Amino acid sequence: MARLVMKFGGTSVGDMDRIRNVARHVQREVNAGYEVAVVVSAMAGKTNELVGWVKDGSKLYDAREYDAVVASGEQVTSGLLAIVLQEMGIPARSWQGWQIPIETSDAHGSARVTAVDGTRLLDGFNTHHEVAVIAGFQGIHPPTGRLTTLGRGGSDTSAVAIAAAIGAERCDIYTDVDGVYTTDPRIVSKARRLERVAFEEMLEMASMGAKVLQVRSVELAMVHRVPTYVRSSFDDPANPGLGTLICDEEDIVEQQIITGIAYSKDEAQITLRRVADKPGVAAAIFMPLAEANINVDMIIQVVSDNSTATDITFTVPAAEYERARTLLETAKAEIGFDRLEGATDVVKVSAIGIGMRSHAGVAAKAFKALAEKGINIRAITTSEIKFSVLIDEAYTELAVRTLHSLYGLDHAA
Amino acid sequence: MARLVMKFGGTSVGDMDRIRNVARHVQREVNAGYEVAVVVSAMAGKTNELVGWVKDGSKLYDAREYDAVVASGEQVTSGLLAIVLQEMGIPARSWQGWQIPIETSDAHGSARVTAVDGTRLLDGFNTHHEVAVIAGFQGIHPPTGRLTTLGRGGSDTSAVAIAAAIGAERCDIYTDVDGVYTTDPRIVSKARRLERVAFEEMLEMASMGAKVLQVRSVELAMVHRVPTYVRSSFDDPANPGLGTLICDEEDIVEQQIITGIAYSKDEAQITLRRVADKPGVAAAIFMPLAEANINVDMIIQVVSDNSTATDITFTVPAAEYERARTLLETAKAEIGFDRLEGATDVVKVSAIGIGMRSHAGVAAKAFKALAEKGINIRAITTSEIKFSVLIDEAYTELAVRTLHSLYGLDHAA
Repeated sequence: MARLVMKFGGTSVGDMDRIRNVARHVQREVNAGYEVAVVVSAMAGKTNELVGWVKDGSKLYDAREYDAVVASGEQVTSGLLAIVLQEMGIPARSWQGWQIPIETSDAHGSARVTAVDGTRLLDGFNTHHEVAVIAGFQGIHPPTGRLTTLGRGGSDTSAVAIAAAIGAERCDIYTDVDGVYTTDPRIVSKARRLERVAFEEMLEMASMGAKVLQVRSVELAMVHRVPTYVRSSFDDPANPGLGTLICDEEDIVEQQIITGIAYSKDEAQITLRRVADKPGVAAAIFMPLAEANINVDMIIQVVSDNSTATDITFTVPAAEYERARTLLETAKAEIGFDRLEGATDVVKVSAIGIGMRSHAGVAAKAFKALAEKGINIRAITTSEIKFSVLIDEAYTELAVRTLHSLYGLDHAA
Repeated sequence: MARLVMKFGGTSVGDMDRIRNVARHVQREVNAGYEVAVVVSAMAGKTNELVGWVKDGSKLYDAREYDAVVASGEQVTSGLLAIVLQEMGIPARSWQGWQIPIETSDAHGSARVTAVDGTRLLDGFNTHHEVAVIAGFQGIHPPTGRLTTLGRGGSDTSAVAIAAAIGAERCDIYTDVDGVYTTDPRIVSKARRLERVAFEEMLEMASMGAKVLQVRSVELAMVHRVPTYVRSSFDDPANPGLGTLICDEEDIVEQQIITGIAYSKDEAQITLRRVADKPGVAAAIFMPLAEANINVDMIIQVVSDNSTATDITFTVPAAEYERARTLLETAKAEIGFDRLEGATDVVKVSAIGIGMRSHAGVAAKAFKALAEKGINIRAITTSEIKFSVLIDEAYTELAVRTLHSLYGLDHAA
């Protein structure tokens, strides 16, 4: 029999009526003949309540205890959904991460899934013909026997990992939107829902600021080639609408050059003026940042008029901006630069598409279009299937709309 | 090093400030040189909230899923108390029932503790010098790997079981009263806190309606001879007051004849009139009740004037009264009786004391004193260390006060 994983987030299980609605979605798939594993998050607001208590308890809390506390939210919803399914006449049982087990690293608070044993879940399908209701977000670190959690959005990753472990035909991610869009519909009214997106594209889009899926869940789906379907939990369970399938690029018939435009305001720019142009200077700048776990993204180096010095510009996450400045100012003499300039009112706009691989000049067209609108580009990075530009935050909407039109993504109406 | 178990109920961990107060009690004992295991309940109100959701999900809910849901409350408080202790500079870690493990039967919702392995907790003391913060109320049924709970008040039982497993010097039960009283202070203003109570006496008092401790926890303390100290969590952590020690009777120097007076309104009386006085009739009455899990307590049989028939009176829990009546009326022809009379406005008043063993006529004195107050006794049962009388509920306070004075339990002031 074909197997299916269905994942529901916190809003979808926010109260008993919504849990009953989730159960009706599950019932539909059971009736369609699937063996179903459902992955649930905690009730909306519960995780925040638990995190609030932890932080009240200690500013420098033990991440292992944080995990013990916050993992309880998913335990509750998994049991409740099992009860509601049984009430509807559908055999079901709850599974905690440690019962399956979902094995993870010991990076408490943002642990990585290292192994999932599907044996017990498959035995539940074969022997008891029961729906497996799985507490998302949780795992266990076997050497210590302690509870772990996978970080915000971790239930997506739980769902994909389970799908891979039980050989599911598909992993359905039910969320509060009906799929992945060409860009943020709140700023581009002509944004379109995508029928299909390639794993690689979705990975770039998630990394570049599209919040639909946790980045790690997309990585995992790509590695294990799990077709992942993003769809709305607000659809009528008896007659659901369409969503977006994240799949192999071979399964996408009409490949566009550019699939979507993403943006991220979570960026800060740092420029070091008149850095001594000598070997090892890049290491002197970036090693201390790496050691402090500050993720450097775009880097550009411009040779200034005086050939013995150069300007270096790069971006860091906005949340790390102050820490990065302090680190660099402290190492100023060692690195050797004139002064540090920074900006937090910047945005990174990215265009993503597998079609870029086989088309030259895709990015150049964008630079020209943005220049014609008077938008100054502070930095550029490119990869095989995306390019990003760093611009003033004030131009966010204008830039996104310009690129969305440029690459033919606007819907017809 | 001496080891100590400390147990705190839901009111004591009701919010973060109260959890900090609990931590100060723990700190005092750590500073006094104890290796400490703390057992915590869920925050006051949380278990009721969880039970409410379960019942909303299904009237006939799966007790295994009920356990998965409600066990989450203790998981939260164990993690939070560990965090608060760490914040105070006291090494600590949380333990879930399944991590220790606390092994139980599969009687979900009211499971019995079958084994507790103290090895990991002792390793925590020896290797990490850390306080063990244990989620009460929970266990695991190893053959199925499922979560279990021990029923209302189950954290008391967790605490005593842990104390036995780690060879604790004492198990301190922190509660909202400062100990065990000679009777309910709400109806007898002259009630006194007992310094010491023997295990056997406490078991009778808990069974007879004193709500301070779960009956099973007292059984377990008696079997494993764990000195159990009932004390107030509202005391100043720096300067706590006294409580009541539940201990071996050999450790009680001044043994009273009667230690305490308990009462229970949770009783109903059933009288079968003119039952045929033939062999096997008692079995015909009581077997169906036993098979329906209805617990029959006091039984008296009076030969009526007509020697071929007899009246039989007994009590059942008030909650089972209607079910018992229906069962008996259904079996009326088979049993052979004239009519069934019942009453729910009755109360069972009990006097408990190990000294009864060596003193004759203790109960007779009570019957006389009650008669002098015009209180009619409907039924009597006695055991080695207690006697109980069933009387009209209206006379509860008068009877309790009468017996309390009779046996010299009133305090001097």
